Amino acid sequence: MDIVNDEFYMSLALDLAERAQGQTGINPVVGCVIVKNGALAGVGTHLERGTPHAEIHALNMAGTKAAGSTVYVTLEPCSHYGATPPCSERLIAEGVKRVVVACEDPNPLVAGKGIQMLRAAGIEVVTGILRERALRLNEAFIKFITTGQPFVTLKTASTLDGKIASKTGDSKWISSEESRELVHTLRHRHQGIMVGVSTVIADNPSLTTRLSVGGLHPVRIIVDSSLRMPLDSHVVSDGTAPTWILTTEQADEGKRTLLEERGIQVIPCGEGPRVDLKAAIAKLGQMGISSILLEGGGTLNGAMLEQKLVDRLIQFIAPKIIGGYDAPGNFMFSGYEQMNQAIVLTGLESKRLGDNIYITGIPVWM
Amino acid sequence: MDIVNDEFYMSLALDLAERAQGQTGINPVVGCVIVKNGALAGVGTHLERGTPHAEIHALNMAGTKAAGSTVYVTLEPCSHYGATPPCSERLIAEGVKRVVVACEDPNPLVAGKGIQMLRAAGIEVVTGILRERALRLNEAFIKFITTGQPFVTLKTASTLDGKIASKTGDSKWISSEESRELVHTLRHRHQGIMVGVSTVIADNPSLTTRLSVGGLHPVRIIVDSSLRMPLDSHVVSDGTAPTWILTTEQADEGKRTLLEERGIQVIPCGEGPRVDLKAAIAKLGQMGISSILLEGGGTLNGAMLEQKLVDRLIQFIAPKIIGGYDAPGNFMFSGYEQMNQAIVLTGLESKRLGDNIYITGIPVWM
Repeated sequence: MDIVNDEFYMSLALDLAERAQGQTGINPVVGCVIVKNGALAGVGTHLERGTPHAEIHALNMAGTKAAGSTVYVTLEPCSHYGATPPCSERLIAEGVKRVVVACEDPNPLVAGKGIQMLRAAGIEVVTGILRERALRLNEAFIKFITTGQPFVTLKTASTLDGKIASKTGDSKWISSEESRELVHTLRHRHQGIMVGVSTVIADNPSLTTRLSVGGLHPVRIIVDSSLRMPLDSHVVSDGTAPTWILTTEQADEGKRTLLEERGIQVIPCGEGPRVDLKAAIAKLGQMGISSILLEGGGTLNGAMLEQKLVDRLIQFIAPKIIGGYDAPGNFMFSGYEQMNQAIVLTGLESKRLGDNIYITGIPVWM
Repeated sequence: MDIVNDEFYMSLALDLAERAQGQTGINPVVGCVIVKNGALAGVGTHLERGTPHAEIHALNMAGTKAAGSTVYVTLEPCSHYGATPPCSERLIAEGVKRVVVACEDPNPLVAGKGIQMLRAAGIEVVTGILRERALRLNEAFIKFITTGQPFVTLKTASTLDGKIASKTGDSKWISSEESRELVHTLRHRHQGIMVGVSTVIADNPSLTTRLSVGGLHPVRIIVDSSLRMPLDSHVVSDGTAPTWILTTEQADEGKRTLLEERGIQVIPCGEGPRVDLKAAIAKLGQMGISSILLEGGGTLNGAMLEQKLVDRLIQFIAPKIIGGYDAPGNFMFSGYEQMNQAIVLTGLESKRLGDNIYITGIPVWM
């Protein structure tokens, strides 16, 4: 049992936001809880870009109880006209008494203005309640809104010796069933999924979200410098989700036309011969992708790490040792000379997931 | 990070229900979450008796997305006309596809009928998802609806030697600050708070809910066999919450009139000379009290335990030893001869709360 206090109600607002992760596109997830005279009066969460914000749903439910209430909201209420009118105006119009905010709007152009507007109207505003959890929920949104670049989560599953398959290519199974369900949860929560064309050629994956309760499919983004993509692969032919191919200016025009005829978007990134990954990530941001799940093989993973293009790493570790000098590794790149040059993760978290250990952290880029 | 599955959405529905504990009177707390095409589409919770049920709030938020959706609800949707029309009918009318229920309606008169109605309409119904947590949230409602009697939670705070004060009566402090906040959370969540008149005479408590975020006050129920209640006590004079006095047929008529003139309800329970506690609890149930927080001294606690009138025990233990042959104990009654006759708690839970250990469990009554 938890004590009923500001954290108690804010944690519900965060629970509400968390359940909508993956469905708000480049918008943040936001939850809202309204309390009047010591009792819950309304709840809401932002569902989809262009639809009402969390505050509006909660105010609608609260009705006349909104006047004189305390409103808990996981992100600073907006102060500008976007797809919907500013929530701060509506909160003022409803006569709310107190607003508790978990974190300020990270958008430097608007940060603090919603809070200012509320305070100017005589509303008491408290900030920072469960701030760390709120920031974590919107880490992709925060990166995107401040830099225009998508947040990249690198996901890999390996043995204790860092292998993603045996020397003969066998990889069934390194990840546990629970880990695989979590991978589909990650796909649901990211706007794009990125792999190299070698993975498509080797495994012909569908790269869709398959959860017991359904889920949203990410845009399938394939790194394919010389357009080796087979036309009969699932990602080209199944029509389940959009497929975008990152390639170079040197790509064969005929193959490009064949792909485009099948509805595939082909995006040149750099002059070649290899895809310019930095340019590619920037271009994906311009195209409205705010989060990417990187499920590459060792080579693509290594290249993305070497270029400091990874924002979070998630690794599932099987308690197995496979050996093999040529067995493929999880991160393949030329590497650093000294241990103090290694890529280091901060904010380390881990837990057991069936027969796997789940590890996550944020690479520190100098 | 949790896997997105039925439990993921049901746990939000339970979070929504939990936040409304204490404000639904004799109604259960119920939360509801609607998911359409793998994405959240609506959330709701029941706020107050006589107002819309959780399902209705969530359906209103989901709008046209309700058709073909999965609805997660912590308690079987109702099938009868009460203060509001039956939710099962509305779910059918909206064309929902699947209903996931944490637990069946415990009311023997309606149990299963809501589910039957949904299934007869061709809706897939799954039950039992996070059932234990759902039952726990509504343990008071379940007892009340099945027996007509209120659920009694006995709360006490003692030293390691079972004392609630020193031999001179000093009790500041046994409970930690966190424990005291939890006690106010318990008051917010119970409809009635019960103490003996000796506590009122000794401490003149207000017996209200004092939480940082506000809260609902329980009805103050004072066990006072011979109407010794001081007229200038807070519970008689402050008007903050209703005060009811449990007494006997022998109570002085003149004192009774003085109390009633002050708005106090005086309730005779048995012929005397002592209040018939069993009759009193039954009468409180008839008067619409479904949950009581018993904050008695050792004598009232002992009498309630001896008569098997306690449904849950919560004890805060301070890591202190005070000693004193006459220092008051937490449970004072003549006791049993053999250890195998002792009152035993099941479902034991404990955690640290500041400098206290919090222990709770359910007494097994033979």
